[in-house]
Amino acid sequence: MARLRYQQTARSGRARAGLLHTRRGAVRTPAFMPVGTQATVKTLMPEEVAQAGADMILANTYHLSLRPGAEEVAALGGLHRFMAWDGPILTDSGGFQVFSLAANRKLDESGVSFRSHLDGSAMSLGPERAVQAQELLGSDVMMVLDECPPPGADRAYIATALARDARWAARALAARSEGGGALMGIVQGGVYHDLRRRSAELLLELELDGYALGGLSVGEPKEIMMEVIERTVPLVSGAGPVYLMGVGDPADLVRAVGLGVDMFDCVLPTRTARTGALLTARGRMNIKNARYKDDPRPVEPDCQCPTCRRFSRAYLRHLYMAGELLAYRLNTLHNLHFVLGLMERLRQAIAQDRYEEFARGFLAELELGQQ
Amino acid sequence: MARLRYQQTARSGRARAGLLHTRRGAVRTPAFMPVGTQATVKTLMPEEVAQAGADMILANTYHLSLRPGAEEVAALGGLHRFMAWDGPILTDSGGFQVFSLAANRKLDESGVSFRSHLDGSAMSLGPERAVQAQELLGSDVMMVLDECPPPGADRAYIATALARDARWAARALAARSEGGGALMGIVQGGVYHDLRRRSAELLLELELDGYALGGLSVGEPKEIMMEVIERTVPLVSGAGPVYLMGVGDPADLVRAVGLGVDMFDCVLPTRTARTGALLTARGRMNIKNARYKDDPRPVEPDCQCPTCRRFSRAYLRHLYMAGELLAYRLNTLHNLHFVLGLMERLRQAIAQDRYEEFARGFLAELELGQQ
Ligand SMILES: [Zn+2]
Ligand SMILES: [Zn+2]
Repeated sequence: MARLRYQQTARSGRARAGLLHTRRGAVRTPAFMPVGTQATVKTLMPEEVAQAGADMILANTYHLSLRPGAEEVAALGGLHRFMAWDGPILTDSGGFQVFSLAANRKLDESGVSFRSHLDGSAMSLGPERAVQAQELLGSDVMMVLDECPPPGADRAYIATALARDARWAARALAARSEGGGALMGIVQGGVYHDLRRRSAELLLELELDGYALGGLSVGEPKEIMMEVIERTVPLVSGAGPVYLMGVGDPADLVRAVGLGVDMFDCVLPTRTARTGALLTARGRMNIKNARYKDDPRPVEPDCQCPTCRRFSRAYLRHLYMAGELLAYRLNTLHNLHFVLGLMERLRQAIAQDRYEEFARGFLAELELGQQ
Repeated sequence: MARLRYQQTARSGRARAGLLHTRRGAVRTPAFMPVGTQATVKTLMPEEVAQAGADMILANTYHLSLRPGAEEVAALGGLHRFMAWDGPILTDSGGFQVFSLAANRKLDESGVSFRSHLDGSAMSLGPERAVQAQELLGSDVMMVLDECPPPGADRAYIATALARDARWAARALAARSEGGGALMGIVQGGVYHDLRRRSAELLLELELDGYALGGLSVGEPKEIMMEVIERTVPLVSGAGPVYLMGVGDPADLVRAVGLGVDMFDCVLPTRTARTGALLTARGRMNIKNARYKDDPRPVEPDCQCPTCRRFSRAYLRHLYMAGELLAYRLNTLHNLHFVLGLMERLRQAIAQDRYEEFARGFLAELELGQQ
């Protein structure tokens, strides 16, 4: 049985809907994966994440390897039991955090050595250990270790990196154990289409279980990002699910689904929630604003989330201003429901072959909020 | 119909069990009221508080008067709607916080003037305003404003204060509106039994809806506190429910129930939870301790709380050490279940007339944990 099988069920333009079959059940696509960085989607119980509409979550191998440790999680029965999440879990390789958080990085063909951002201890990560750590966690869908080139890296640097990435992907595949989860590759190449093509070709040869688009949403203009997505997705979409890493802005989700992306993850809905920013059809609502002090309405009148069903904007503002922990929880619930509800509406629109109509309406409504 | 009616259903020694009938339903006694200081039992949804076994909660009039304001809560439909708690709510008068938090206090016969601890603004509180604020919140059981004498106050000071308290109680009663909630008096008198008796006599004349024991658990030795409780409870227990304010330590709860107390409130279970201290039959478990790093067991094997049913000590320690907000929530759930479960066991023991046996066993088990 395949470790990961993408089954398309509907198409509307370039947007596609389907099911992603993992060893722990099916994931409805297009799918958004809430991020459970440290074995918890911050503030929430696992059933609240599921009830919000998530089929699969993402966990960060770097953070969990540092604390409590991949071996420790394995000894406790794996990540699913540890955090009481029964559905599929996708783990990243740890590379993104090594390249963004860790100090004293040294990179060579074998891998990367660095110091922990928590206690400065010396560590190293290579493609084999990245797979081993993810297997210890019990990951259902693993990602290969790749380099995240520094912002502003030039063409030659990117070309060298993606060739090494492909060699690392081959080593990762060889390191996977018999009972290991699925393994997805990451197409790099910056904003250079020929490099993206080269990266895709090298990875496709390895017949990985699916392909992600990496190195995007790192500061480049939105039009450039969308153009890269538009030109890269067709290179890999015949070979499994297509995963756009680190994108969770509602408008970006709608546009990227329209270009054929199947999977997303992002801290945006949960992180913005903790800053008091609530996602709505008309854009972000800053609940700290004094205008909500006496507002008896829910954040969104039509929202069926546990927050909007019972609590007013005035209450949410009060909790936030008072520094109450429940504020973060209620805001997180709403934002996750918003983004996961959006994915459900996208799936339905695709099933009814009216993606274009839905996207136009959704984006126009968002525009209204910015006036 | 009486605003508050205490119905005794069982007795075991001096311990009694019963029902406290409020305008928003019955409360099983002995009862522990979780504290929802700022219109939230910190980290929890209202249904989680109810599922933990709470029939009634306490809210702090001082905090809510400052933020968002009693009039603001009234305009939003009252505290029950504001925080989505449908059960009875007891509110304190605000006096305790005025005397412990506020600055520049000036006390005279009319009331107390002070400055907000939040923004320094000048405010005042008298017995009439204390009732008005509680009525604006929609309180089901209100407390009269009284003075909390400073620690170390002498006999003469306490005697003067309790006489003024009684005059304030009469004014509070006169200020209550037709549709207002029940109103309980507070017996003061420090550690002087004749003063406690005098305070009780003055208040009983007013025929309030029930009586609390105030000015305890403020630093005096435990034996002194228990002796005051033992001698004061009989003075008021024929005239409604007896409420011991600010006590929530498990051993104290068991002993005070044995002396005939019906109601308690305390931040102890929720506050200690947020410091990583978990209440167990053998005393407090400090979840930060390294010994729990690899411990796959729940906090308490027999506990049926949402935390113990699914999460290990190792997971709780991980969350706490990682600073995850879910840690505070899971710890709070366990501690509230522990204390509210203890109240249920006390009610059952009283119903079966084996309070003494239960108390002896419970306290002996606690002792074991301290060895
Ligand atoms: Zn909502
Ligand atoms: Zn428990």
